[in-house]
Amino acid sequence: MSNSLNVSMIVIGDEILNGRTTDLNGSWLSKFLFKKGLNLKSLRFIRDDSKEIDQALKLSLNESEIVITSGGIGPTIDDKTKNALASFFGKRITEREDVARIVTQNYVQFGRSWTPDHNHYHFFPEEFIATNNPRGLAPGLVFFEQSLNKLIMAGPGVPREFTEIVELEFFPIIKKYFNNQFKENYQTVIRTKGVPEEKIFFELCPTLWQDLEAFGKVSSLPHTIGIDIVVSYHGSESIHLENQQQIKNFIENSLLAQYVWQYGNNSLNELILASSRLRNKTFSIAESCTGGLTSSKITDLSGSSQFYMGGVITYSNQAKIDLLGVSPQTLEVHGAVSAEVAKQMAEGVRKKFKTDYAISITGIAGPTGQTKDKPLGLVYIGFANELHSGAKMFQMPGDRIRRKERFSDTALLILLEMINEKLDQ
Amino acid sequence: MSNSLNVSMIVIGDEILNGRTTDLNGSWLSKFLFKKGLNLKSLRFIRDDSKEIDQALKLSLNESEIVITSGGIGPTIDDKTKNALASFFGKRITEREDVARIVTQNYVQFGRSWTPDHNHYHFFPEEFIATNNPRGLAPGLVFFEQSLNKLIMAGPGVPREFTEIVELEFFPIIKKYFNNQFKENYQTVIRTKGVPEEKIFFELCPTLWQDLEAFGKVSSLPHTIGIDIVVSYHGSESIHLENQQQIKNFIENSLLAQYVWQYGNNSLNELILASSRLRNKTFSIAESCTGGLTSSKITDLSGSSQFYMGGVITYSNQAKIDLLGVSPQTLEVHGAVSAEVAKQMAEGVRKKFKTDYAISITGIAGPTGQTKDKPLGLVYIGFANELHSGAKMFQMPGDRIRRKERFSDTALLILLEMINEKLDQ
Repeated sequence: MSNSLNVSMIVIGDEILNGRTTDLNGSWLSKFLFKKGLNLKSLRFIRDDSKEIDQALKLSLNESEIVITSGGIGPTIDDKTKNALASFFGKRITEREDVARIVTQNYVQFGRSWTPDHNHYHFFPEEFIATNNPRGLAPGLVFFEQSLNKLIMAGPGVPREFTEIVELEFFPIIKKYFNNQFKENYQTVIRTKGVPEEKIFFELCPTLWQDLEAFGKVSSLPHTIGIDIVVSYHGSESIHLENQQQIKNFIENSLLAQYVWQYGNNSLNELILASSRLRNKTFSIAESCTGGLTSSKITDLSGSSQFYMGGVITYSNQAKIDLLGVSPQTLEVHGAVSAEVAKQMAEGVRKKFKTDYAISITGIAGPTGQTKDKPLGLVYIGFANELHSGAKMFQMPGDRIRRKERFSDTALLILLEMINEKLDQ
Repeated sequence: MSNSLNVSMIVIGDEILNGRTTDLNGSWLSKFLFKKGLNLKSLRFIRDDSKEIDQALKLSLNESEIVITSGGIGPTIDDKTKNALASFFGKRITEREDVARIVTQNYVQFGRSWTPDHNHYHFFPEEFIATNNPRGLAPGLVFFEQSLNKLIMAGPGVPREFTEIVELEFFPIIKKYFNNQFKENYQTVIRTKGVPEEKIFFELCPTLWQDLEAFGKVSSLPHTIGIDIVVSYHGSESIHLENQQQIKNFIENSLLAQYVWQYGNNSLNELILASSRLRNKTFSIAESCTGGLTSSKITDLSGSSQFYMGGVITYSNQAKIDLLGVSPQTLEVHGAVSAEVAKQMAEGVRKKFKTDYAISITGIAGPTGQTKDKPLGLVYIGFANELHSGAKMFQMPGDRIRRKERFSDTALLILLEMINEKLDQ
């Protein structure tokens, strides 16, 4: 990766290093910058401490043209970023009318009014630019250090505020100062299922890594349902399309082909909604051990209500009988975690919601519940359409949370294959 | 925070800075170390690049006694951590029989056998200790630099492997070398609902921040259903209990008291399960706009199946009628997002699953679906027990994902209050 324009990010806040809050801004920014063709050179997490801010700014300015910080620009005493930035660049903090106007605007968007009694937002380092905060109250801080040709931007720590201020306020400023110094990044992602990383690179395709390096930088990443092989390069849309096609042709002629379920970077729920829309099909979901996670993933997407009619979570056997019409005898003979019950759950929820397709999940997420015949991680995914129904068995590693993730993604992949009429039944 | 023992973490991997993967190890380690009384001094994210690893090691060893890295110890070409560490400390990599034995053990736990043909895991820096990997295959690397009295430990990037290797292998080694140099950290958390941060600190209790600083370091953190005020200090269990009681007494005599729903750090689902267990009560959940998220949060906890009987996700009006017995006329007159429908959903799901309590959620998560009378973010939480039922209205900010989180946490808080017989109906 030899992009010309580096960005360093500094995440400021005791709450993150103390484990009270999980940072979302760093991982969001990494995705955002990658798409925009900027190189996230480093990501530093530090405390609300002027000395640490000072040191992190020094290191960041040494390695990058652009420094973005998140956190510490609010109204309370532990918000130290504004003062630390002013002192770093030797600027006085003064009462500024232009900033007061921006703050007033920020308040107006929430139907509130602002006066200097509220806080000291309008005390601002001289020569710094104040930006609107499209989702919050505190203004963003921007300073262009002309002698170094470097840009420093400080945003809020709250993720919904940070992401919007970067997209709508900071990025246009980056373009203004550095327009011709970056070009977009592209990736081709080969998403596999059901084959271990070692089998891919040491058994099926021993020269795959080197072969793919002809196109760009290669990395291999385990995900819930398999290994993603990512090839990254920068260039233009047309170079990307050509690379993508060549990589696809190459893989399709290899032993890996049968394990690939997607050449691309779409999430399962996006693919499911797109296929449902294309074929005008509806679906429903019956969950046991995943406890609603599968439906929740689907409904994360706006527009899902057109195709996803609903679901049931039947944790108890009685609920499986009452709500889904699972046979008490089947439960008795085969147990709740069985192919037969999974099949009946899928058939039952499909009837209940009158949908074209249905999937079901019944398994043992752990850490308890295993028996001699049924180990932790065993799961049956049921499926049903108008003509067919059945179930597939899997055995998944992980802890309870991880298994819920894997079980639900596996079920979503089966739903996708069913909607696309590619399910091997 | 002036703990004597600092830890620096280095997260290694292009996939994180490129936005392909969200790091979980950093936020997990921050929580783990805080509990153990170690100070996470800094957290650096760098690429799979020997020079960057070198520089990050230098900076980390300068500021901390312990350095922990994650990532880059696997079998593929982009795994550079082992070589970089060896070269940093000037150690040769040799073929080691003792490491081969550890690798063999790692494979055995997955029922697999290992030979040197598999990979080069047994090529290892001299004087480095290899540890077991309780959830994976690659051994952990540990090196104690005696002249500096510093400890360096490298674990895998996969979160389930990293967390277990730190808990079971690395932490005992830290204790061995630094036993008396750290003591546990404690926090008292004042969790509020329904009151903005500014109102707390500028209106209700203008001296609260300073008052709480008598006990330790103060921070203020917005969460899904309100502001958490966190007071952190280190000492002993008895000092903690005394501080906690004093802080509680102080707040109970302030105007903030009515907004506090917990003095502590338990999650809503933990509190709900504990109360359900104590009172031996069952519950069920009907969701519309949250799409299964509320049930999924409950079922993240092992043991939830004793009290949570199940739920339904009724996205469509027809499903609300068919599965929950919501009256078509009520839907017609008041609309799906209304107090009346929320109430009937809760009553319906309670009957369906034969539970003591039930909650329901119907709202507008956005970004579409609003009407003139019903703005984005409007939500009704229904509740029902044997004798009473009703609904509460809220208006929540955020985007779709954020609103799903807020809606479901608000519903869980109402469920908790209902189980504890504290719901103001």
